[in-house]
Amino acid sequence: MARLVMKFGGTSVADLDRIRTVATRVKREVEAGHAVAVVVSAMAGVTNQLVKWCQELSPLHDAREYDTVVATGEQVTTGLLAIALQTIGVDARSWQGWQIPIRTDGAHGKARVDTIESAELLKRMAIGQVPVVAGFQGLGPDNRVTTLGRGGSDLSAVALAAALKADRCDIFTDVDGVYTTDPRIVPKARKLDRISYEEMLELASVGAKVLQTRSVELAMKQGVRVQVLSSFEDKPGTLVVDEDEIVEKELVSGVAYSRDEAKVTLRRVPDRPGVAAAVFGGLAAANVNVDMIVQNVSADGTTDMTFTVGRADLARAQSVLEQARGKVGFAELIADPGVAKISVVGVGMRTHAGVANTMFKALAERGINIEVISTSEIKISVLIREEATELAVRALHTAYGLDAAA
Amino acid sequence: MARLVMKFGGTSVADLDRIRTVATRVKREVEAGHAVAVVVSAMAGVTNQLVKWCQELSPLHDAREYDTVVATGEQVTTGLLAIALQTIGVDARSWQGWQIPIRTDGAHGKARVDTIESAELLKRMAIGQVPVVAGFQGLGPDNRVTTLGRGGSDLSAVALAAALKADRCDIFTDVDGVYTTDPRIVPKARKLDRISYEEMLELASVGAKVLQTRSVELAMKQGVRVQVLSSFEDKPGTLVVDEDEIVEKELVSGVAYSRDEAKVTLRRVPDRPGVAAAVFGGLAAANVNVDMIVQNVSADGTTDMTFTVGRADLARAQSVLEQARGKVGFAELIADPGVAKISVVGVGMRTHAGVANTMFKALAERGINIEVISTSEIKISVLIREEATELAVRALHTAYGLDAAA
Repeated sequence: MARLVMKFGGTSVADLDRIRTVATRVKREVEAGHAVAVVVSAMAGVTNQLVKWCQELSPLHDAREYDTVVATGEQVTTGLLAIALQTIGVDARSWQGWQIPIRTDGAHGKARVDTIESAELLKRMAIGQVPVVAGFQGLGPDNRVTTLGRGGSDLSAVALAAALKADRCDIFTDVDGVYTTDPRIVPKARKLDRISYEEMLELASVGAKVLQTRSVELAMKQGVRVQVLSSFEDKPGTLVVDEDEIVEKELVSGVAYSRDEAKVTLRRVPDRPGVAAAVFGGLAAANVNVDMIVQNVSADGTTDMTFTVGRADLARAQSVLEQARGKVGFAELIADPGVAKISVVGVGMRTHAGVANTMFKALAERGINIEVISTSEIKISVLIREEATELAVRALHTAYGLDAAA
Repeated sequence: MARLVMKFGGTSVADLDRIRTVATRVKREVEAGHAVAVVVSAMAGVTNQLVKWCQELSPLHDAREYDTVVATGEQVTTGLLAIALQTIGVDARSWQGWQIPIRTDGAHGKARVDTIESAELLKRMAIGQVPVVAGFQGLGPDNRVTTLGRGGSDLSAVALAAALKADRCDIFTDVDGVYTTDPRIVPKARKLDRISYEEMLELASVGAKVLQTRSVELAMKQGVRVQVLSSFEDKPGTLVVDEDEIVEKELVSGVAYSRDEAKVTLRRVPDRPGVAAAVFGGLAAANVNVDMIVQNVSADGTTDMTFTVGRADLARAQSVLEQARGKVGFAELIADPGVAKISVVGVGMRTHAGVANTMFKALAERGINIEVISTSEIKISVLIREEATELAVRALHTAYGLDAAA
């Protein structure tokens, strides 16, 4: 007998038929003898409608009222799923964030979970009752409903699993697991049986959006074993676990890409202390996230500085930098939105040399030029021309031996 | 400066434009210096959809989960109206039943309001903040959301007005007040400026459904002055107040009708003690409401007994009575669904004779036969053939001098 948290996203509870299917799936785990708690999102489309209403009334609406409005979507699903479960003979009851309570900080619209009272839920689970918990929401210090930001139901599920000391947190979604890369680009992409938290984080942050990033961070911090699996197909998904649980460590677990990048180059920046701070301080103040940064070695007392920002932030970054031109003293600003970031990720890199060289060689063989390189302990990222994205991803997937057997 | 509760029903908040209109209306009262609290229903159609989902999942759904689901409709409106008010410069915040709290008993789906904590709301109203309160819902003893039954937002508004000791409770709706009779039948029907609680109750219970009956009872008990007015037109409505506040007491305030009646006659019932109990006890046990009852004087040791039941209950009533035939001992059961009940209502009847005679004379002049008569202190009701309904209502409206000047 295990203790499980099962989380179902919006497409999994999109209508009454799907809610009935979810109920059947939950029933199976209960009948297998497991103690089960369920976390649900709003029915697909509902949250968008509620958000739209708030925005139409006022783009600068009160975040507390926004939370009051949008949190209702999850509340509806909890009640409906509880009814569906009871109808097929499973003892169940709905729980809103304020009833448990799931206490959060007061950052309405993007709150953080502080504590979850688990005693009452555990007592009921022990006698076979299934708590159906509203995802995405909690109770703020002002006794008002808070929400956790987009994708926040994943976070609710992981936080609940941690509070309940669950053996596993199953995240049911519309994909059946985490793949070595995007199957739309590489048909030979393989589903991974296991992946470490850190790999998952690196993959998520470079574009493989299966789990909300904060929920992976929380799972890693709290040691919650997470499974990503399909709510439509009946087969195991990908287990996201501690590196120690992965016996066969792949050198590279996956290849990710992002087309949301733009490259900025500042030519002939004076090579003196404080310049970098002047450049990046201004961008940070304007809420522009900077990712890869490269600075060439200085020759004549000036240097070229290259970095990437989100493509949507490019215009803002240019404006901020032009305003700081006098203070920074660069000769030219070159903005280039036509780039893509390709990353290979794997915990095996820590103990193996030559991983980067395989990447560079594979790209060189296809005539793909590398514009910027950045590395972390378990990731190597390169910036290339955007039009070479597919070619690069396919080449790397093959080069690291990730292709599925034909 | 007055303290006001303003309640807006589903059609008044059906979309964002109407919510903006409501906000403007509230703002006007705030700017006039009044301390205002608002009670809102769900946007028109929302509650029906939520109820339908519950029923489709299970006709015998858990009333606690039903309450969890349907109470979300009002929650959405509170948040949206608070945003709309803030947008036009009115300080406002939403309040759900559990936040105030509005404590109810545990009768989920048809709960009764026990207490409303008013101190915090009053404090905020005193500094110009408008509480936007979710109607129809409260917090049960089990710490779960309860709902008050259909039309329950009227009840919420009156209960809140009582708790806040408000000077008036304005119920904004899609009619502009209470009329002397149904204007669809009598174009000369007049809107009443004032009506007493008791008259309102008698009119409501015979078919003039403007205010939920329980809310009128509560208003009477707590002495809450209620105004029924249109949310679409900008003019005074009808004030529902204590009889003492009505200086010019009309002999008859209104003429009501109901086509939801059926007549049952039991022929040749033995005239002995306990027979009435046997007849009506069985009907009560089967949840059949009996309204008008007439029993003729006995001649040969038997009597004829006639009474009315709701037309929808007629089949059930027949079945119950046939089963009790042996015990009761009647000779024949005659069921007649083709009747209508016409009532004239007015507190002036208490002190004036001849009111009934005016009714009987007016009906006789039109050749309308009276089948059953029943009277209360402020009401006279007769049962007639259904097809004579319009003719009877018009005749009585004229006979009691209720027609508007041409």
